[in-house]
Amino acid sequence: MEWIEITADWDAESLRKVTARSETEQNDVEATVAAILADVKANGDAAVLAYNKKFDGCNCKDLRISEAEIEAALQEVGPEMVAILKEAADNIRVYHEEQIMKSWLKEFRPGVRLGTHITPIRRVGLYVPGGRAAYPSTVLMDAVPAKVAGVPSLVMISPPNKDGRINPYILAAAHVAGVDEMYRVGGAQGIAALAYGTETIRPVYKIVGPGNMYVATAKKQVFGTVGIDMIAGPSEVGVIADSSANPTWVAADLLAQAEHDPMAAVYLATPDKALAEQVVAEVERQMTGAPREEIMRSSVERWMRVFVTPDIETAVAVMNGIAPEHLELALDNPEIWLPKVENAGAIFMGHYTPEPVGDYFAGPNHTLPTSGTAAFSSPLGVYDYSKRSSILSYDKQALTAIAHKVEALAKAEGLYGHAASVAVRHSEEVTNEN
Amino acid sequence: MEWIEITADWDAESLRKVTARSETEQNDVEATVAAILADVKANGDAAVLAYNKKFDGCNCKDLRISEAEIEAALQEVGPEMVAILKEAADNIRVYHEEQIMKSWLKEFRPGVRLGTHITPIRRVGLYVPGGRAAYPSTVLMDAVPAKVAGVPSLVMISPPNKDGRINPYILAAAHVAGVDEMYRVGGAQGIAALAYGTETIRPVYKIVGPGNMYVATAKKQVFGTVGIDMIAGPSEVGVIADSSANPTWVAADLLAQAEHDPMAAVYLATPDKALAEQVVAEVERQMTGAPREEIMRSSVERWMRVFVTPDIETAVAVMNGIAPEHLELALDNPEIWLPKVENAGAIFMGHYTPEPVGDYFAGPNHTLPTSGTAAFSSPLGVYDYSKRSSILSYDKQALTAIAHKVEALAKAEGLYGHAASVAVRHSEEVTNEN
Repeated sequence: MEWIEITADWDAESLRKVTARSETEQNDVEATVAAILADVKANGDAAVLAYNKKFDGCNCKDLRISEAEIEAALQEVGPEMVAILKEAADNIRVYHEEQIMKSWLKEFRPGVRLGTHITPIRRVGLYVPGGRAAYPSTVLMDAVPAKVAGVPSLVMISPPNKDGRINPYILAAAHVAGVDEMYRVGGAQGIAALAYGTETIRPVYKIVGPGNMYVATAKKQVFGTVGIDMIAGPSEVGVIADSSANPTWVAADLLAQAEHDPMAAVYLATPDKALAEQVVAEVERQMTGAPREEIMRSSVERWMRVFVTPDIETAVAVMNGIAPEHLELALDNPEIWLPKVENAGAIFMGHYTPEPVGDYFAGPNHTLPTSGTAAFSSPLGVYDYSKRSSILSYDKQALTAIAHKVEALAKAEGLYGHAASVAVRHSEEVTNEN
Repeated sequence: MEWIEITADWDAESLRKVTARSETEQNDVEATVAAILADVKANGDAAVLAYNKKFDGCNCKDLRISEAEIEAALQEVGPEMVAILKEAADNIRVYHEEQIMKSWLKEFRPGVRLGTHITPIRRVGLYVPGGRAAYPSTVLMDAVPAKVAGVPSLVMISPPNKDGRINPYILAAAHVAGVDEMYRVGGAQGIAALAYGTETIRPVYKIVGPGNMYVATAKKQVFGTVGIDMIAGPSEVGVIADSSANPTWVAADLLAQAEHDPMAAVYLATPDKALAEQVVAEVERQMTGAPREEIMRSSVERWMRVFVTPDIETAVAVMNGIAPEHLELALDNPEIWLPKVENAGAIFMGHYTPEPVGDYFAGPNHTLPTSGTAAFSSPLGVYDYSKRSSILSYDKQALTAIAHKVEALAKAEGLYGHAASVAVRHSEEVTNEN
């Protein structure tokens, strides 16, 4: 934990370094991943099955998850949990429907119609981690917006355990969200199967979802062949608190973030130093004996920062410099500070909106830009599963009217063929020199 | 050039290989770029000036381009060209204003307000290539949407010539588009300066713009530290033609694309084999003696594909499989085929909308997804310079109503701290076991 006193002459840009938590050399990972990608590209299913055995200890033959397995998973998690998953999926769906883009075409100038043609990506792959980090909520958050966008073919992959099984909560969430195909394969080999295709798994056009270092590196390496979502780094929360905040609640919210990962970072900015001291004491009290105490303590010790600021405005500016994934405004009047927020993945308003509400239930996406990337990127959404194509339409008169200007610009750029393609339409003679 | 007869049992996905024009090993480039990035990160301006000398032969001391230089550039290109640039910028501005996203907040359920908070990226860097590929139109296309998004600080960099000068058309276009700062530096060293900052150049949050292999590799390597736009590959056009098409015009349009780059690809799909033969003859006739004949011929010989299809519908399906950057519908009734188009960067409707109109003047962006990436990505736009933050707001009653469901999901994921941050708000006692 570190206390940072913000004074009048502070430098907002220095905060960009606060969020940089990992810039390790990973040349070994790069090479290992490249070899796995090449193997799967060349050898398809055979390579995938061999890696399933090697990395996951799974001696399975069928990559595809059957209807019977999905049915068994629904039984196992029980009807009450399925109902909660459905309600969460509905909330996510309703919120994301606000993001649907519509095609349009309109006349901007006489004879000049311009517009946008919106289409879904044809086939998308979702990566879902296995083991400790198996989060059914992430399946909903990644899959529901794809279906809202109209993606006709949505594929999920996840690493199997030794018996070839996938966490039943994951399968139940995928079923509820409308995933079309599910396969048992994880790691770089799973990313390769999605990007290049195998005998069993047809290739996709985009891959989304979190994963470990091998998965993230594989996604980076196949980027270009397919689209990818952001590369998720460790998670973080920032809380801006005034004297109206309850230190017990603020501490609980900081720890909810800290329990994710020893690399998770938690930031508090407040003008009320006494409050800050109470929060710090509460953090210590609440994490002692908590089920995930070890992870929490590691995160808090290394990555908790307490900023004591001259005023709320400066606290907001500090968080804008950090660009946290989650930003809680534990303030009496969060609305008046909202317009000042520049950089945050998601903003939680007031004392009764703890961050976990957004993880599961509210509706907005929990796949958010991490590690300061909220300064230049946005939550996952329908946009990520849709494409825009520009539409241009000139009639003869409209083209003739601007022909000489297009030709002048083309020639300024030395592109005579560009000029010719316009000129040819208003002269019978094609002149190459034109 | 290759003729491809499309028969009834064709495989649309096989076309993904048609567009893959370059998957070369570039380990040398990776290592060279990594060394340059590290040098600039460590040594700032001194490293940048040394690379300017080494790579561009420029012994300059001032990196920043002065007001006097910009004024001189405007004089040099002349008032007529400045007026054309302004008109093009206006057209680009008016089209992109349709893309402005607005913040919103609404009540979805009693006591539950959700929304989206829209903000511009605070500082953005534009890379503009020098030399042969110095395109003022690209400056307009990259800069105007940034200003429409409200980016307050927009920086342009471009490699200098031996005398330290930048192409005056580039400077004039940047001035017209409202670029705030301009610097003479290119290559990987320029990308490093934008990503990490130097004594003279403050760092940015996102870098956009095309460049050579070193620039593209540097952008990939700094991705994460900053945002980047797409990595542009070689350009392409696809033309779908029916018997109403003029073979002379279609050939001119194919050559306008071919003259860009020996790697540029041109595709024709038509059910009219006689028309296809006329187009091929016209391509040969028009490129013979053309100013950029050598580039055109290289592109046409290696990367021109003519698809003869059973009908227009199949021709559209072929282009959906290719996902061309530019798609011309050289058809009598392009409107009726538009809904069938799935994958294209920009769609040019009818016989009087040659692709070069979109390069310069119409208004939609000419920075488009290349090499098949239109299957999963979109033209550059205001979206690329804006960020969305989700907004969540629960009141006490709304939180209490869903508390048990959030706690159930949190516990299903093994995240007891998440459950506690909700529980603590409806009990006075904090229990770690809860």
